[in-house]
Amino acid sequence: MSDLTPRPEDRFSFGIWTVGWQGVDVFGPATRAPMPAERAVHKLAELGAYGVNFHDNDVFAFEATAAERDERIGAFRKALEETGLAVTTATTNLFSHPIFKDGAFTSNDRDVRRFALRKVMDNIDLAAELGAKVYVCWGGREGAESGGSKDIRVALDRYKEGFDVLGQYVADQGYDLRFAIEPKPNEPRGDILLPTVGHALAFIETLERPETVGVNPEVGHEEMAGLNYAHGLAQALWQGKLFHIDLNGQHGPRYDQDLRFGAGNARGAFWVVDLIDGSDYDGPVHFDFKPPRTEDDEGVWESAAACMRNWLILRAKVRAFRADPEVAEALRAARVDELAVPTLGEGEDWRAVRDFTPDVEALATRGAAFERLDQLALEHLYGVR
Amino acid sequence: MSDLTPRPEDRFSFGIWTVGWQGVDVFGPATRAPMPAERAVHKLAELGAYGVNFHDNDVFAFEATAAERDERIGAFRKALEETGLAVTTATTNLFSHPIFKDGAFTSNDRDVRRFALRKVMDNIDLAAELGAKVYVCWGGREGAESGGSKDIRVALDRYKEGFDVLGQYVADQGYDLRFAIEPKPNEPRGDILLPTVGHALAFIETLERPETVGVNPEVGHEEMAGLNYAHGLAQALWQGKLFHIDLNGQHGPRYDQDLRFGAGNARGAFWVVDLIDGSDYDGPVHFDFKPPRTEDDEGVWESAAACMRNWLILRAKVRAFRADPEVAEALRAARVDELAVPTLGEGEDWRAVRDFTPDVEALATRGAAFERLDQLALEHLYGVR
Amino acid sequence: MSDLTPRPEDRFSFGIWTVGWQGVDVFGPATRAPMPAERAVHKLAELGAYGVNFHDNDVFAFEATAAERDERIGAFRKALEETGLAVTTATTNLFSHPIFKDGAFTSNDRDVRRFALRKVMDNIDLAAELGAKVYVCWGGREGAESGGSKDIRVALDRYKEGFDVLGQYVADQGYDLRFAIEPKPNEPRGDILLPTVGHALAFIETLERPETVGVNPEVGHEEMAGLNYAHGLAQALWQGKLFHIDLNGQHGPRYDQDLRFGAGNARGAFWVVDLIDGSDYDGPVHFDFKPPRTEDDEGVWESAAACMRNWLILRAKVRAFRADPEVAEALRAARVDELAVPTLGEGEDWRAVRDFTPDVEALATRGAAFERLDQLALEHLYGVR
Amino acid sequence: MSDLTPRPEDRFSFGIWTVGWQGVDVFGPATRAPMPAERAVHKLAELGAYGVNFHDNDVFAFEATAAERDERIGAFRKALEETGLAVTTATTNLFSHPIFKDGAFTSNDRDVRRFALRKVMDNIDLAAELGAKVYVCWGGREGAESGGSKDIRVALDRYKEGFDVLGQYVADQGYDLRFAIEPKPNEPRGDILLPTVGHALAFIETLERPETVGVNPEVGHEEMAGLNYAHGLAQALWQGKLFHIDLNGQHGPRYDQDLRFGAGNARGAFWVVDLIDGSDYDGPVHFDFKPPRTEDDEGVWESAAACMRNWLILRAKVRAFRADPEVAEALRAARVDELAVPTLGEGEDWRAVRDFTPDVEALATRGAAFERLDQLALEHLYGVR
Repeated sequence: MSDLTPRPEDRFSFGIWTVGWQGVDVFGPATRAPMPAERAVHKLAELGAYGVNFHDNDVFAFEATAAERDERIGAFRKALEETGLAVTTATTNLFSHPIFKDGAFTSNDRDVRRFALRKVMDNIDLAAELGAKVYVCWGGREGAESGGSKDIRVALDRYKEGFDVLGQYVADQGYDLRFAIEPKPNEPRGDILLPTVGHALAFIETLERPETVGVNPEVGHEEMAGLNYAHGLAQALWQGKLFHIDLNGQHGPRYDQDLRFGAGNARGAFWVVDLIDGSDYDGPVHFDFKPPRTEDDEGVWESAAACMRNWLILRAKVRAFRADPEVAEALRAARVDELAVPTLGEGEDWRAVRDFTPDVEALATRGAAFERLDQLALEHLYGVR
Repeated sequence: MSDLTPRPEDRFSFGIWTVGWQGVDVFGPATRAPMPAERAVHKLAELGAYGVNFHDNDVFAFEATAAERDERIGAFRKALEETGLAVTTATTNLFSHPIFKDGAFTSNDRDVRRFALRKVMDNIDLAAELGAKVYVCWGGREGAESGGSKDIRVALDRYKEGFDVLGQYVADQGYDLRFAIEPKPNEPRGDILLPTVGHALAFIETLERPETVGVNPEVGHEEMAGLNYAHGLAQALWQGKLFHIDLNGQHGPRYDQDLRFGAGNARGAFWVVDLIDGSDYDGPVHFDFKPPRTEDDEGVWESAAACMRNWLILRAKVRAFRADPEVAEALRAARVDELAVPTLGEGEDWRAVRDFTPDVEALATRGAAFERLDQLALEHLYGVR
Repeated sequence: MSDLTPRPEDRFSFGIWTVGWQGVDVFGPATRAPMPAERAVHKLAELGAYGVNFHDNDVFAFEATAAERDERIGAFRKALEETGLAVTTATTNLFSHPIFKDGAFTSNDRDVRRFALRKVMDNIDLAAELGAKVYVCWGGREGAESGGSKDIRVALDRYKEGFDVLGQYVADQGYDLRFAIEPKPNEPRGDILLPTVGHALAFIETLERPETVGVNPEVGHEEMAGLNYAHGLAQALWQGKLFHIDLNGQHGPRYDQDLRFGAGNARGAFWVVDLIDGSDYDGPVHFDFKPPRTEDDEGVWESAAACMRNWLILRAKVRAFRADPEVAEALRAARVDELAVPTLGEGEDWRAVRDFTPDVEALATRGAAFERLDQLALEHLYGVR
Repeated sequence: MSDLTPRPEDRFSFGIWTVGWQGVDVFGPATRAPMPAERAVHKLAELGAYGVNFHDNDVFAFEATAAERDERIGAFRKALEETGLAVTTATTNLFSHPIFKDGAFTSNDRDVRRFALRKVMDNIDLAAELGAKVYVCWGGREGAESGGSKDIRVALDRYKEGFDVLGQYVADQGYDLRFAIEPKPNEPRGDILLPTVGHALAFIETLERPETVGVNPEVGHEEMAGLNYAHGLAQALWQGKLFHIDLNGQHGPRYDQDLRFGAGNARGAFWVVDLIDGSDYDGPVHFDFKPPRTEDDEGVWESAAACMRNWLILRAKVRAFRADPEVAEALRAARVDELAVPTLGEGEDWRAVRDFTPDVEALATRGAAFERLDQLALEHLYGVR
């Protein structure tokens, strides 16, 4: 096994709210003390992280006065300077305060929508100032529990309007900042708009500045819909839209577990690392998890460190997998390379296959040889090859 | 309750394979006799259907000789003429024969891909001849059970190539035919490409002729991913891409149940009819269900008739819901109309809200009044208003 | 439609915590003010409820001094007396306070386990004094997120010990009180012990006083596992163990939605009411729902009233269904009555069928006629018969 | 890594129907040739299996004449003798033939029920003769798609009657054979009776000979309900009812995938092996999987061999995990041992804790240290410790 020490070039980053989660859930209050953003920064730096992502209200309270806000931002900025941690990403909390109970950009209440835009602009300014290149937008409560309360087509009009206004703002300010929409199917709302990577990718094409907007798929969010996260990432990459990734762990359709990366679907994690490591994705390797409510402060840092460690372990494995001559042979046997050959040859059009008749019997009986290949991958995951 | 007799203007249609399903599943063989396509046509016409959809191999066997094919198509055509039933839609069976065990357009085997294109072209010719306006494409086995066997980005290249070739073919033939991609998350493959409405909508934007390709969402397929089917339809409508609908019933994430429309998620069905009836969708109201394996021939027709009947029942209900003055008032109380007001006023840009400060306290305590509205809808479903 | 006014003989009850839920979730704080238990009692009485269920900490805070506790209980008791509402049921909050972060009866920490028993005994005394006949036990955090942290067999030893100790306590005090275990598969823990009705029923058989322990199945909890709630109730009834029911609404495997009864799976609700109304269950018709976080105080009561109203609507429907002659005929056609005839006749044993040879062809082709019957039920739900 | 060669003492067994699955599913016919049972026996023996399980109709067709049946059984028996493979288990196919379309023991049709008993007795005789010690009962189609078609309480009466009759038969014949009920939540029926391990365990307690009936939990069947398979096994062990296990792979709530063991939920598989290896379970390590329809004969054997290999790999890992001193220390830190200490001490009863007051502050702030422990387990799975 190669060295498992996180290094800046690994570009590991964390949300301030991840290690800062106090454990409040529907059934109980905090089990851990509040964590000032600057403490999170210092501790993450010690563990080897490269950068952070933050919501405005991870740094200062919604109700903060201007002076309090400045003080809190100052402390955060100082910690960043002291540690050299990058702000890779920023985002806005548009879901916690009661005014956002029906969403933000798509709240039925126009004043809420107008205020939401302002709250994002406020934090975009801070994000740009701190050097963030990606602005994540998770539409936490953009959705509905009931069918009549939201005209979805009209809500999408408003959602689009929000992104168009903010796109104009960023352009007018000259910020070097792109947006990344984070899909989620449900929780805390019954059904959330843009529930999967696919829906978000489709939506982006309707925007005024589609080139400035991509996606930020999260492991758990896609797996809550029973979808293959690596497949979602692959389509986003294929469409040139993978601007950010949120890594964590989940056990299929149920509540949003936000386990540390590697916990949950271990085989899925292997293929995620294989895909990203073999792609031109150059954003941060970002973890969006929640240390379980059972853990104390020490457990928080154990789980944060483990996220990075598991990525490094899996990266070594997928590289070994791709370098293994037996794997190369199994890939050929499974004709994985043949899929890269266009169906029509150079210069051919539909006429070339209009009367194409294959050897049906031969094709019907030919095995695909996928099981052997998959077993090799599994043995690389197990570390027995 | 208004008249529940199906009429041509209701545009009800069925897949030939629905009433023709013999009950073969993983755990047992057929429980019903084969049904020639012409019998399905005659019986559906008697029940009040307007049209049908068919796979090539619903009419003639994969192995049919040219003479057998002609005979079978002749019988089908004759039944259409005798009944006046329209062929609203057609599609290709690219998933049953063993050669398609790894998919068709994205099979690792290039000969399979080439043959799949030819098989589609064959049936497009027949579809056009029979007057179909929509050509449905369900990528039944375009997917994978294991991570290494399919490079998803490359598979999407091939999938796109397939649609581009076929788009060229249709254009060159001068057919008045549009494609509708039918998404499905899994089954019979572990993970299927273009798993949801969103993924398909996003994919379409990458094609050479995106304007000729839309989606055909199916109730059960979206609900297998725990997604809200009406929300998916709404996004497709909003993006101008709802070319066809496949109605049936499902009980959430599990195997593809294909229950008759109305069975399954009854509340979801109410909102589906509400959406479609209030939209400019003008395609067929198509049922893609499977009469349970427990039923004999009589049960097949009971369940087919019930699909149409349930649509008509629900249509009467949603119209009553929309016409109810108390509902109108509840919609206003829930500010559903306010969502239609753009967030920025005429002539405003981001500057108008750059410093917008709402009355936070008032917004925080204001209730959304969604429960009352939803209860009114439920009582319309129950038929007690 | 019959009268829909809730009456005492309907035995409707609510948890104090249901209408009292302030809207705290993982992603945001309260949107509604705290509600003293006495206010819940008065309002529920106005709406027509018959009784209430309460956790100790619904009435007084965990940290309450003895004086505060007495004052709060006094106010609660006064409200009960003023309204005549029954305390049908009581329960203990063993999941909110941070000390219960790893569960209560099965916490790895022995002091937590000992304290949990004491906390239950405290509230059993109060429950008995207030006349409750059922003591609900929801093992909120009895479970684990990870495989090594909990030896499940040992945890079941402790779980059994807890119930045996409490059973002895109740016996020694001479209380007329039975326990009802409420299963749940997950949330807030990754996997919870006794995840379904079945697991709880099986566990009960291992206890020292199995006759004093039954189950309290909740709609949403079973449907989170994709299970049929009515089937679970039926097995519990069949085993003589349905001591209580928790009614609400859910949309399949996802977070615990706790929608009002009737919202969610409407067809499922029909069969639940059909089963209970046709059974000898004589406990309260209890609602355990959460008014959505979007609602203000008025919305809280709208949703609470709707729970009862929906039960009454459905009860009228299922009675009409059972009284419908066409349904009776369809039931016969579906041979539902034949299932009640024992497979072996009076005096027969296995020898009677050792060489039994049926008419295979006749049985194979005979349809079960289930679709027609189900359509009749659906039309009763729709209110069109 | 220790030796990965399967040995008789590993007690690996396979269903004849697993490697013999031809690939028929709802969407397509066979992709592989039929496999006579004797071929499966010979090939499995070559791979290192110890035993087999079989349905009657895995060996001979439903329609076989007595002579054909004898010939087929003779060939099977000969193969068993030649290879020395044990028949560890047997079972009856009560779900394929059309007469079982509404189930067997709980079919509404009494003749079907009577014939089902006879069919089981026929194969019990053969099973006993071949030395099977466990008779598996999977109620493949005992269930319903719709609420009115099956009175669940009455169906459970019939289900119980079926087991009681068969229990008497086995007793009267003096066979040394126990039954193992295999639960499944759905597919091929909408909702199946005894849907989980828990429901089956509870049901068993109602039988006349509960001591002769246990459960046969299958990985995929429990995971289709989102349940933790190892937890289900643990409760079955705890109740003395784990008579057999069916190992395979699944990706959460969706169709029944029957992937080879190790594929699917890899972390879950680790804990399953940990549990079984550390328990007194002494039945076969049985695989009930389906080689994907994409595979040819070679792929069938690759996947079968991989099932055993993955068990051996994981067994080495869980033993290393349990032997790791750092794990021992982490288990202590997580107080896993403290859960084994009874909550009440020797001689204590409820009085000992009636007024127990712990140090709430200390307990509230103490971390459970589960993340560190789980990460150690994960690193053993990864093979990096």
